[in-house]
Amino acid sequence: MTAQKQGQDASPLRLGIAGLGTVGTGTVKIIQKHAALLSLRAGRPITITAVCARDRMKNRDVDLSGYGWEEDARALALREDVDVFIELIGGDEGIAREAVTAALRAGKDVVTANKALLAIHGQELAELAEAHGRVIRFEAAVAGGIPVIKTMTESLAGNEIRRVMGVMNGTCNYILTRMESAGLPYETVFEEARQLGYLEADPTLDVGGIDASHKLAILSAIAFGTKPSFDAVEIEGIERVSIDDIRRAADMGYRIKLLGVAQMTGRGLEQRMSPCLVPADSPLGQLQGGTNMVVIEGDSVGQIVLRGPGAGEGPTASAVMSDIVEIARGVRMPSFGQPAGDLAMPQPARTAVPAAYYIRLQLTDKPGALAKVATVLGDSGISIDRMRQYGHSRSEGVAPVLIVTHKTTPDAIDHAIAALPRTGVIAGEPVELRIEEV
Amino acid sequence: MTAQKQGQDASPLRLGIAGLGTVGTGTVKIIQKHAALLSLRAGRPITITAVCARDRMKNRDVDLSGYGWEEDARALALREDVDVFIELIGGDEGIAREAVTAALRAGKDVVTANKALLAIHGQELAELAEAHGRVIRFEAAVAGGIPVIKTMTESLAGNEIRRVMGVMNGTCNYILTRMESAGLPYETVFEEARQLGYLEADPTLDVGGIDASHKLAILSAIAFGTKPSFDAVEIEGIERVSIDDIRRAADMGYRIKLLGVAQMTGRGLEQRMSPCLVPADSPLGQLQGGTNMVVIEGDSVGQIVLRGPGAGEGPTASAVMSDIVEIARGVRMPSFGQPAGDLAMPQPARTAVPAAYYIRLQLTDKPGALAKVATVLGDSGISIDRMRQYGHSRSEGVAPVLIVTHKTTPDAIDHAIAALPRTGVIAGEPVELRIEEV
Repeated sequence: MTAQKQGQDASPLRLGIAGLGTVGTGTVKIIQKHAALLSLRAGRPITITAVCARDRMKNRDVDLSGYGWEEDARALALREDVDVFIELIGGDEGIAREAVTAALRAGKDVVTANKALLAIHGQELAELAEAHGRVIRFEAAVAGGIPVIKTMTESLAGNEIRRVMGVMNGTCNYILTRMESAGLPYETVFEEARQLGYLEADPTLDVGGIDASHKLAILSAIAFGTKPSFDAVEIEGIERVSIDDIRRAADMGYRIKLLGVAQMTGRGLEQRMSPCLVPADSPLGQLQGGTNMVVIEGDSVGQIVLRGPGAGEGPTASAVMSDIVEIARGVRMPSFGQPAGDLAMPQPARTAVPAAYYIRLQLTDKPGALAKVATVLGDSGISIDRMRQYGHSRSEGVAPVLIVTHKTTPDAIDHAIAALPRTGVIAGEPVELRIEEV
Repeated sequence: MTAQKQGQDASPLRLGIAGLGTVGTGTVKIIQKHAALLSLRAGRPITITAVCARDRMKNRDVDLSGYGWEEDARALALREDVDVFIELIGGDEGIAREAVTAALRAGKDVVTANKALLAIHGQELAELAEAHGRVIRFEAAVAGGIPVIKTMTESLAGNEIRRVMGVMNGTCNYILTRMESAGLPYETVFEEARQLGYLEADPTLDVGGIDASHKLAILSAIAFGTKPSFDAVEIEGIERVSIDDIRRAADMGYRIKLLGVAQMTGRGLEQRMSPCLVPADSPLGQLQGGTNMVVIEGDSVGQIVLRGPGAGEGPTASAVMSDIVEIARGVRMPSFGQPAGDLAMPQPARTAVPAAYYIRLQLTDKPGALAKVATVLGDSGISIDRMRQYGHSRSEGVAPVLIVTHKTTPDAIDHAIAALPRTGVIAGEPVELRIEEV
């Protein structure tokens, strides 16, 4: 009994792989190492017709001699002897977008790891794929080896998704956990990460939260049946997270994570990427180093947590392979879990879901100072859950004060943060961070 | 643009649901509540033709008036107007097996939550399904709402799986965590669990590790491309886990979990279900209450951790729905990730992979007693990583001794455990528990 009996095509699935960086070479390695296993699992051989990359002469630690070579990814995408175009070039414009578009127009299926391309042009590409009866799959675009696209699109198809959230940039999580474990300031650890090669060429993609927001926009679209809308994500990076806040948050039983959260509310779709406090003993709080985690809440399933390596050659290539095997098996999945034409235009909403907040401020040594702070909070409709005042620093004459509020709205917090400096009893700017309920 | 363009059938997918317990009624509820959403995601309507259960008159908190009723599951399976037979009856023999077999023979696809049926007769059913060009899907059979079957069969298709392990019986995990948090002995918490309705009618299915072993056998088959071989699982339940061991393990930084582990070794396939120590700060160690967790290690992806509700109406019905939507979308997946005829007959191997072990014994108050114990361990080729001797109990004249060994083989441990009582310096039987590296 073979897979052919199931109505599948048993001819080889022929790939054209564009981009031979970490992920591209990793994908070639898996196809070479596991040819027999892949053929068994997919029901047909998976072969590489040709590859392309910027520099043919570069030493890549993988034997490419059996494959054709194309100088131009668009030419690779159009080859008659390529069934699936694998785009591992990156970037939301330029050659990646052009080649993917050309491949779909030419009736090829596409597999890509390109989160920016999907977050920004996902709707257009999904419509193009459907118009040509092809698929574009992108498991590797979100959270590396973690099978989050498949879980959301397929495993949770019986659920109305309530909320999806995650730590999806390993570099930021590395920086934040390293700051805590080594007691080092942001700037020092940022420089370490740069020297270790953990940062993108443009580091604001990582620490500015852009990369993680691309991923969140893709997950939102699948979760809520809406067109991907990266522009509507409220983004704040980790640059203003201080070692002080990390320490104080730990004192109160929290850890700070760059957390992406998407949820559909009565006012519209909230998508935010920002440093948040989460309980130190929660799965998200326990997440160390470069590991990623996605938490999905559905009306039937409750809460599902997926944890794994969010980047790197093996994990990302593993995700690319899952899409390739899916196509080889003859599975035709709509890009965002339903036909592209049925995806709704989301109503973007500024975050309004109430939460507890962490506030840190520097109180000056004046009589009645704390009372003034409490009054401002009360006037903003904010009630205090816990408060700690630390000893005054002799040199600066200020005392750090930490406040954990009861659940309140972002508007109330904004109101209070704007009003606090006008009390005349605090030094510098107060810091506020959302405490996400996880 | 609709899913039809992708070559799918847009006629309704008609279900026959056999079994209206928790999971069956949960499935009906989802189909009623999310009819429009499911139709959009699946590309076609999903409808229920008829249902069947033991007692038609039972109040089920769900409106069944729109569906046909069959007294006999086999008759339901054979109805012309049923495309997919949903088996939620349970049990590895009798009506469940007969009706599933009848459905496949009649050319129906089958979705089931029946772990015992799959673990014991999975090979036969997978072959039968393929012979008739149908599929049998069983996401709900393992770890409830956690999408572990899909993750292993599809998402990790590019990986050679190294090891799969998990906490897959929520009742056992509830009992063990409750023993620790409340400081109560096994018997008391077992009785609590019975009164709360957490236990199967035959509680040895839970606490004897049988239920979890059914799940492990299914995962093993997918992971290693072998025929499901439940009979070859080495099974030990949680009955002999004492509150003493839970406390002592906690002292040493561990928690005790009923852990299933499957791995392919040079000697063959090791499958074991047993109480193990895991680091208290690991994802498995952190797992509280009825939640399940599966950890999968692949050669490319590294380690993936999936966590979620392992039982209950909503989560299990969510998993059933994912299989139904998959079939509605026209996806034809081989049952165990590759054609049934290609699954290898596994060579079962007794556990031989080395691990550290925890040993607890009661030392009598004699000169040189500890030296004798150390000598036995040394003679068995076991070296000691950490050792603690607690104070002597005055009434019994014995002192608890805890030993954590360096990595050693199960054979060496067996040798030592057999030899220890012959030293004449220990009271009662020594306890040994494997410390699984996670």
